Amino acid sequence: MALTEQQLAEIAAQRAASATTRRATVPALEAMLFEAREVLDHGFVRVVDYMGDDSAVVQAARVSYGRGTRRTTEDAGLIRYLLRHRHTTPFEMCEIKFHIKLPIFVARQWIRHRTANVNEYSARYSILDREFYLPAPEHLAAQSVINRQGRGAVLQGQEAEDVLNLLRGDAMQTYDHYAAMLNEGPDGAPLDPERQGLARELARMNLTLNTYTQWYWKTDLHNLLHFLSLRADAHAQYEIRAYADVMLEALHAWVPITAQAFRDYRLGAVTFSAPMLDIIKRMLAGEAVEQATSGISKREWTEMMAALGRAA
Amino acid sequence: MALTEQQLAEIAAQRAASATTRRATVPALEAMLFEAREVLDHGFVRVVDYMGDDSAVVQAARVSYGRGTRRTTEDAGLIRYLLRHRHTTPFEMCEIKFHIKLPIFVARQWIRHRTANVNEYSARYSILDREFYLPAPEHLAAQSVINRQGRGAVLQGQEAEDVLNLLRGDAMQTYDHYAAMLNEGPDGAPLDPERQGLARELARMNLTLNTYTQWYWKTDLHNLLHFLSLRADAHAQYEIRAYADVMLEALHAWVPITAQAFRDYRLGAVTFSAPMLDIIKRMLAGEAVEQATSGISKREWTEMMAALGRAA
Amino acid sequence: MALTEQQLAEIAAQRAASATTRRATVPALEAMLFEAREVLDHGFVRVVDYMGDDSAVVQAARVSYGRGTRRTTEDAGLIRYLLRHRHTTPFEMCEIKFHIKLPIFVARQWIRHRTANVNEYSARYSILDREFYLPAPEHLAAQSVINRQGRGAVLQGQEAEDVLNLLRGDAMQTYDHYAAMLNEGPDGAPLDPERQGLARELARMNLTLNTYTQWYWKTDLHNLLHFLSLRADAHAQYEIRAYADVMLEALHAWVPITAQAFRDYRLGAVTFSAPMLDIIKRMLAGEAVEQATSGISKREWTEMMAALGRAA
Amino acid sequence: MALTEQQLAEIAAQRAASATTRRATVPALEAMLFEAREVLDHGFVRVVDYMGDDSAVVQAARVSYGRGTRRTTEDAGLIRYLLRHRHTTPFEMCEIKFHIKLPIFVARQWIRHRTANVNEYSARYSILDREFYLPAPEHLAAQSVINRQGRGAVLQGQEAEDVLNLLRGDAMQTYDHYAAMLNEGPDGAPLDPERQGLARELARMNLTLNTYTQWYWKTDLHNLLHFLSLRADAHAQYEIRAYADVMLEALHAWVPITAQAFRDYRLGAVTFSAPMLDIIKRMLAGEAVEQATSGISKREWTEMMAALGRAA
Repeated sequence: MALTEQQLAEIAAQRAASATTRRATVPALEAMLFEAREVLDHGFVRVVDYMGDDSAVVQAARVSYGRGTRRTTEDAGLIRYLLRHRHTTPFEMCEIKFHIKLPIFVARQWIRHRTANVNEYSARYSILDREFYLPAPEHLAAQSVINRQGRGAVLQGQEAEDVLNLLRGDAMQTYDHYAAMLNEGPDGAPLDPERQGLARELARMNLTLNTYTQWYWKTDLHNLLHFLSLRADAHAQYEIRAYADVMLEALHAWVPITAQAFRDYRLGAVTFSAPMLDIIKRMLAGEAVEQATSGISKREWTEMMAALGRAA
Repeated sequence: MALTEQQLAEIAAQRAASATTRRATVPALEAMLFEAREVLDHGFVRVVDYMGDDSAVVQAARVSYGRGTRRTTEDAGLIRYLLRHRHTTPFEMCEIKFHIKLPIFVARQWIRHRTANVNEYSARYSILDREFYLPAPEHLAAQSVINRQGRGAVLQGQEAEDVLNLLRGDAMQTYDHYAAMLNEGPDGAPLDPERQGLARELARMNLTLNTYTQWYWKTDLHNLLHFLSLRADAHAQYEIRAYADVMLEALHAWVPITAQAFRDYRLGAVTFSAPMLDIIKRMLAGEAVEQATSGISKREWTEMMAALGRAA
Repeated sequence: MALTEQQLAEIAAQRAASATTRRATVPALEAMLFEAREVLDHGFVRVVDYMGDDSAVVQAARVSYGRGTRRTTEDAGLIRYLLRHRHTTPFEMCEIKFHIKLPIFVARQWIRHRTANVNEYSARYSILDREFYLPAPEHLAAQSVINRQGRGAVLQGQEAEDVLNLLRGDAMQTYDHYAAMLNEGPDGAPLDPERQGLARELARMNLTLNTYTQWYWKTDLHNLLHFLSLRADAHAQYEIRAYADVMLEALHAWVPITAQAFRDYRLGAVTFSAPMLDIIKRMLAGEAVEQATSGISKREWTEMMAALGRAA
Repeated sequence: MALTEQQLAEIAAQRAASATTRRATVPALEAMLFEAREVLDHGFVRVVDYMGDDSAVVQAARVSYGRGTRRTTEDAGLIRYLLRHRHTTPFEMCEIKFHIKLPIFVARQWIRHRTANVNEYSARYSILDREFYLPAPEHLAAQSVINRQGRGAVLQGQEAEDVLNLLRGDAMQTYDHYAAMLNEGPDGAPLDPERQGLARELARMNLTLNTYTQWYWKTDLHNLLHFLSLRADAHAQYEIRAYADVMLEALHAWVPITAQAFRDYRLGAVTFSAPMLDIIKRMLAGEAVEQATSGISKREWTEMMAALGRAA
């Protein structure tokens, strides 16, 4: 991450300003407001605004006139009940807004979450910075041989070196050609006065997918939890999980009760199908169930035993 | 509107509390926060939370690091440009939350706006209050004879009196029967110990559609403008327009630049089709265009001349 | 249900017509197309159009050029895998459209599912029929004493009779007053030429919530499954579950593989939190876990033991 | 476009199959079903399924039991009225599904339309083809000097040649390096047995944004019209407009009445603000209005005069 002096000054100015409000306010989240938390090699996550707190969930669930708070334990119990039973609408009553810098191939996964508001930096209108993602050595993984959309062991030695050189070299070269085709100097004047310069909306097509872009991304608490349940999951691609992990920290600062319930009932939860539940009941009754007579497929049996921490 | 002592106390307590925040804060909206503005005979609109201000629109459009403000006139120009050209995503970056009390038949129109978050008071879970909407005499209108979904002249004399008596009598009777079927006293004890009481989720079906319900309703600025463009319009049913008008006041307090642009480019705007535009050009060139040779239908001609303030 | 002669004739005419198409076609669903299946006392569900079949799910998941079918067992395996792992987007590629007649209080629950397209019969524009829902004796339930939003035992004897009389009497009276206020005869002429007639958009407010309305409702397969998982569930109110049950039959006719996977992995499935999963592991290892030392609350313990079919 | 023999055979097989259906069927759209219409140098648009026709709009607007058709002119009048007055819900009752091959930078613009269902070919799971977009000479435009997000004159001579060489060279090189890092031969065996091969989910980041991807994209008629109103517009980037133009042809084949109304009231329509409308009225009354005293800004004045085809 390389924030410019001016960007740092703008962030500092925002952090220094304060006002009085009657709205629900969360000191732990205020403390991190506007700050850029580093993600990957040039990316960041900044919380730039929020609405509501844990109490706002309770307030909406009760459609109450005041803050809706009774006793703290009662509120926590209600939040946990709502989350456990997927009564999701009260969680939609809180909102959070992030400023995020991320590689384009990550942005393409991210944007598939449709229930969010997005303003992306426009490469049709402006010129992108010369920044691209290069995996750290420990994240330069081979293709998994058992999971078509997963990673295997970390690449070693010459292969790792070659791959990094190719990624770096191509990103630098395509960016330099992008700049050359634009033919626009830092002052806006043409680099080569003999050339017109290719339209920005066309020149951008020469950039590689690890080029960084940035956007404002705003969503409600329910949809944030849905995003995190998929993207902070072990099956998510590492590069998007790195963002989800930082956002999970912001979640804990913002709505600690909801965040804990989310960890208990969502992140660590396992769903068993009707036939699987039947098998568990038989096992609890002392029966030694085997896959062949279990009524479920081998694949499901393997998944189920893994969830129960047993040998398949 | 009949807020109870306790409800008024809860609202007063919320208004009395304050905190320091780094977030964008709008004093004019803070001033009205939590207060119940009366609508119709028992309804209200309360702004209970908000996120962002005019500058947040600018900030998102520029994907900026700081507040995004340059000069005020420049910001206003950008907001007006965005609204005029329907670049709607930056307006999605502001959010507002209302607590609203409204008749069920109004709630049924309102809920058709899908891009919003809603928590409604549950008559499956709780007992509704004995409050129902009765039109003021000046809103007791006859069916329009020219518009199948519009109103005509105000009812007069005996007919007006009869209608009000029927509405009032039926609402009171059905509510009393609702309460009798529930068989539940103010303390939760049965009114008649010999009876079990009908399930709340069934008893509610006896209520009339002018019974008041209430909900928390949250939406972003873009969708609020869309709601207001339809519901603060002269073609909207008076009873929902009454709510839209109060929300329009909140809009002006919250985002004055956006609100003014909305009035200029949306509320008072007229869209002409390609053939209509052609007619205007011919008229401006001095031609006396007539419907018969205009190329548009009589109905469209009438609509167009009405928009231009000319006799059809 | 009381379809008029003309309505029956229109349905028969639609069923009699046929055409040749290159689109995916499902004979079992074609067989029930347009037919009104009775629900409650005057309601119905009609499938009026559909797009896609089980193969369309496979086709989209593979982004294939042809029908996407390999071997049938392979397709079924893929559909079951997608559903089990909540890869939901391929299920969004099928679409279904219903014409539904339902009481207004059911419509109010239903409309909370926002990801659907709806056209409701407008009581602002037209006059509603004199039809209202009255529960059959076996569905006239008392309020549950253990679940604030549930039903208890069926009402008996005099109380049942009284409740039905109140519901019937109020619905008939409010409808008759609605008609009187409208002052419009079957031929459109005023009933009483001395009166103007109240605007339809106002008169409707006198109707009770068990009055029937109707709408066209269209959704994709993913959102239909979500709807059914909530509304065909034992915790759903009986009156909406009655509709969901009929729609579940249509689901089986339309996409039999998806429907079976839905029953296995969704309808009968149970989700255990991380702490619950830990308890199951301890129990499977032979430990006699008790609530007090389980690490979960009494309420969760009760829910968990119920899911496992064990005494709490 | 280079469809393989197998892809062409699969398309031909689908076109050859047919079935009998009771559903609304549109022969003109059936005629083009499944066929790949070329767009840009390697892209295509294929209509792969549809639901409903012009009559389905009428049927939903009337919540009718049969096909909903009265006289054809009456239906057309209703459709035109609905579209003119933005009564959009009946148009949501028709659905269409496309299979589209498009450059990634176009896909990134396209995906911002959130109310659609999408299944994209996964470069995490599969290997992308060696196909990338290179503009035809007449589309190789310079940056506009008056519109920051627009194009100016077409590049000529050496500059055009250089740009095309850079684009072609970089795309070929980055793809070749992508393939080398994957280290996977056509038979799935490693190209170099000494290497593990980089994970697909990582290797893809080396591709340039003009690489082709493909997806299934499904939306309802209302949202399709919204998409086309923005993307078939003169301000849209040429590369996405090329897709919109082909989809507009499909629209005419599918719902001819709606398509014509869309052209009249949406594509060629102009919206004037309240102050602009006032100026038109003054001009029609014979006044020679000038910008200085018009009450609108210079920018708006220029936009308005352009719409009216007059010198600013």
